[in-house]
Amino acid sequence: MQAKPAEPLAPTDPELLRQLADLVGPENVSATLPDRLAYSRDLWPFTTIEVQHGHLGPAPDGIVWARSIEDISKILRWARDRRVRIVPFGGGSGVCGGTFASGGGFILDLKRMDRILSLDPVSLTLKAEAGIIGERLERELNARGFTMGHFPSSIYCSTFGGWVATRSAGQLSTKYGKIEDMILGLTAVLPDGRVMETRVAPRTAAGPSLTQLFVGSEGTLGVIADATVRVWPVPEVRLFRGYAFPDVQSGLTAIRRTLHAGVRPAAVRLYDELDTFIIGTGKGAAAMRKDADGHASPGLKKVLLHKAQSLAIAYPRVAGLFEDLLPETCLLILGFEGGKELSEVEESVARRLCVEAGGKDLGPEPGRSWWERRYSVSFSLSPVYEEGNFADTIEMATTWDKIQALYDGVRATVRKHAMIMAHFSHAYPEGVSVYFTFAGASRDRQQAQALYQKVWSGAMEACIAAGGTITHHHGVGVLKAPWMAAEHGLGLELIQALKRQLDPDNLLNPGKLGL
Amino acid sequence: MQAKPAEPLAPTDPELLRQLADLVGPENVSATLPDRLAYSRDLWPFTTIEVQHGHLGPAPDGIVWARSIEDISKILRWARDRRVRIVPFGGGSGVCGGTFASGGGFILDLKRMDRILSLDPVSLTLKAEAGIIGERLERELNARGFTMGHFPSSIYCSTFGGWVATRSAGQLSTKYGKIEDMILGLTAVLPDGRVMETRVAPRTAAGPSLTQLFVGSEGTLGVIADATVRVWPVPEVRLFRGYAFPDVQSGLTAIRRTLHAGVRPAAVRLYDELDTFIIGTGKGAAAMRKDADGHASPGLKKVLLHKAQSLAIAYPRVAGLFEDLLPETCLLILGFEGGKELSEVEESVARRLCVEAGGKDLGPEPGRSWWERRYSVSFSLSPVYEEGNFADTIEMATTWDKIQALYDGVRATVRKHAMIMAHFSHAYPEGVSVYFTFAGASRDRQQAQALYQKVWSGAMEACIAAGGTITHHHGVGVLKAPWMAAEHGLGLELIQALKRQLDPDNLLNPGKLGL
Repeated sequence: MQAKPAEPLAPTDPELLRQLADLVGPENVSATLPDRLAYSRDLWPFTTIEVQHGHLGPAPDGIVWARSIEDISKILRWARDRRVRIVPFGGGSGVCGGTFASGGGFILDLKRMDRILSLDPVSLTLKAEAGIIGERLERELNARGFTMGHFPSSIYCSTFGGWVATRSAGQLSTKYGKIEDMILGLTAVLPDGRVMETRVAPRTAAGPSLTQLFVGSEGTLGVIADATVRVWPVPEVRLFRGYAFPDVQSGLTAIRRTLHAGVRPAAVRLYDELDTFIIGTGKGAAAMRKDADGHASPGLKKVLLHKAQSLAIAYPRVAGLFEDLLPETCLLILGFEGGKELSEVEESVARRLCVEAGGKDLGPEPGRSWWERRYSVSFSLSPVYEEGNFADTIEMATTWDKIQALYDGVRATVRKHAMIMAHFSHAYPEGVSVYFTFAGASRDRQQAQALYQKVWSGAMEACIAAGGTITHHHGVGVLKAPWMAAEHGLGLELIQALKRQLDPDNLLNPGKLGL
Repeated sequence: MQAKPAEPLAPTDPELLRQLADLVGPENVSATLPDRLAYSRDLWPFTTIEVQHGHLGPAPDGIVWARSIEDISKILRWARDRRVRIVPFGGGSGVCGGTFASGGGFILDLKRMDRILSLDPVSLTLKAEAGIIGERLERELNARGFTMGHFPSSIYCSTFGGWVATRSAGQLSTKYGKIEDMILGLTAVLPDGRVMETRVAPRTAAGPSLTQLFVGSEGTLGVIADATVRVWPVPEVRLFRGYAFPDVQSGLTAIRRTLHAGVRPAAVRLYDELDTFIIGTGKGAAAMRKDADGHASPGLKKVLLHKAQSLAIAYPRVAGLFEDLLPETCLLILGFEGGKELSEVEESVARRLCVEAGGKDLGPEPGRSWWERRYSVSFSLSPVYEEGNFADTIEMATTWDKIQALYDGVRATVRKHAMIMAHFSHAYPEGVSVYFTFAGASRDRQQAQALYQKVWSGAMEACIAAGGTITHHHGVGVLKAPWMAAEHGLGLELIQALKRQLDPDNLLNPGKLGL
């Protein structure tokens, strides 16, 4: 979790650049200053603090673009021969420093591998190259009558391969699953340049799952070149319903009972009191909401909200008091989609269960409103930074029996240092994920980093103590690497052993995942 | 795929027995002749042919029972120190030679680890030891109002841990998933005796899935000691519907459209013409059916059916002709279960799609009848052996676009050597599994073995050629090990590399999975 201050960049070895240009063509290699700086970080907020204070991350020696599996093979063989580090790179939308080129080396950018390779309308399977941007992929599917059902809020700036490499989740994951639930097979180029293609099958009993070994491997075991996933027909209907619950617990109970009844909502979003107040649809929130997503001009409410936020960020203990004064309302949004008959029955069964659990039916509006601005959340942290403060998100998951303790534990520790709020947005029969947003203030870089570090350490330890998993869908990168041993115990040694076998010199994305 | 004739058994080294008795108590060690013979094979039909001709499989040196994780650790450390082979063993119901103790060593029987460790009624999760028999587990769950939804036809003689080790599927997998879909975490004892516990979470993004690395590992990477899985409330309703389709293709189309509509039947069983005729519910089949499961006394139809079967087994080319004369009827059974409202809508949507695809509605009876005798299929091959013939089952899976070619390809090659029929019984949005049953005749052991080998080689090659996976839920064992390289390509080398790291002397269940 350390970043280096921006020393004057050392020039890149021209011999390496010449060799790479020979391999893949000069138009696919760059070592210009703007490129090296642009690829010196992903969207990890720690590095945003650095940039805020005029410091840059560790710049790579250069960038190389692959156009084919053969290119990736050539580049990896070359890198192994010359002991050059390689960091696979998609959209750079990660928030954990997963593409951090610490120690130098080359960024291997996959965005020039952006083709849809096949779309089978009979089996409903899609094969696409790793570098295609998610929104374009979904748009092209829609044009042919299909959807992947995968809508991460980063969809405009994340790639298909990046989703696979990080075990990504979309906003409708409760129905469509996370990427690991959709994936049927993949092609990975191993660190020695050999190409491994896993067999595409609906299910198999032919030994351990190699596909699930590479999903979430974050470019450490190989470079994911393409993947085959399940798609669906564009849904016939899309229904929403909002509910107001008196507290988080009753809202969670409603979600749990809905899932246990065999109902599969597409969207499930339960906001805690503070999150409901700030971005939700509570009393008088309609105006706030419109302001918040930038479609309306700033009004009095926005100004007030903004001031309250700044105050809460600067004085987290005040935020705690403020929070106690909040109206006791937690907003739950449920969305249903698919065939009309099934979706309507699912919506109706869920409505009965929500009302039984103490929810007040708010009609379809809160859900529709969320749907319209569903991607803006990814950009909502910027204003905090513009004020000189910092913010980040922490997502975890656990089973239903432990979720309240995890939520309470993480909040209790983080509130000492920062303002924190949360929503629950990916539900399963056995449990749910929780998505915290925190914001802190600081006088200078050192203090900001120390606070940031304290928040993360506290949150990770509270998560492990409560029996949760340290990440549900953002991945590990360098940010969460220090807690991989606590997460996996002996299991981490197995991943390390495999890494040593595949990449003895640790050249492929070193330092990520605790490898 | 070779078995050794039963030489007079070499006596077991008494020093090894004494050491084992010291470790786990003399009551947990045996090297008696009956025990060694009983554990010399699982239910792999190849070894049944051997037994039929008076030959026995490779007997282990003895059997050791573990009562705890600590016992397993002690046994594995001891085995590593003394370079003794260990074969983990559950119910012995496998059909691929997965517990074959070729080269000797000790069977590690886990059936004395048979406790339910926890059942969480809030998260609907169950943690149980590996050695509990499936039927008892399900019965105890039912008594508390829950179901695992996992009903392999071997349920009376297979264990919970065995299901995990082989990527087992139950008869209601289309709704509840295979074991790899239900599992949330597991404890495995590694070959060096260390204990690895994977984190239980609904989903995680903390790197590669270690759980999915051990699911299907067939005791080669570690001994699975316990697992945590998802359970469900006992369903409120269970609905069945049968349909008669003119051919396999239209039946498959109906299943595919049903799955693509988002409907999740619990049971999906489509029998091809011959399978429909023999065990299905076609014209006049009610009597046959009653006879076949042994509840009624033998009647004329049974005798006729029996004679036809014998003839078809002895002369597979005649069977081919006979098959062309069969009534063009393929039986499809769909079952729905869960909450009443949802299940009724699902049944109704599926009924409309089945009729549109050319199915004739047969009402609920064929499904109910199958449900009542659903476990008897596991025992239906015995009469074939009593006649001096042999039989086995082959299950594979592929995506919808390839399933007809796979089905045709496998039948075309197997029909040269044996009678073959099939049903399709595990469906997914992207594809389906096919379950072949074949029966052959032979004059002697050598000819039976040669025929058996030809059938399997032909079927495996036809499967790979059609792009299918060589097994959907029976696993690999020694039977399918020769095709693991074709199945996985370079991926097999990865599993082998990991195996070498974990078990450098290849002591834990050697020879399985191509390891």
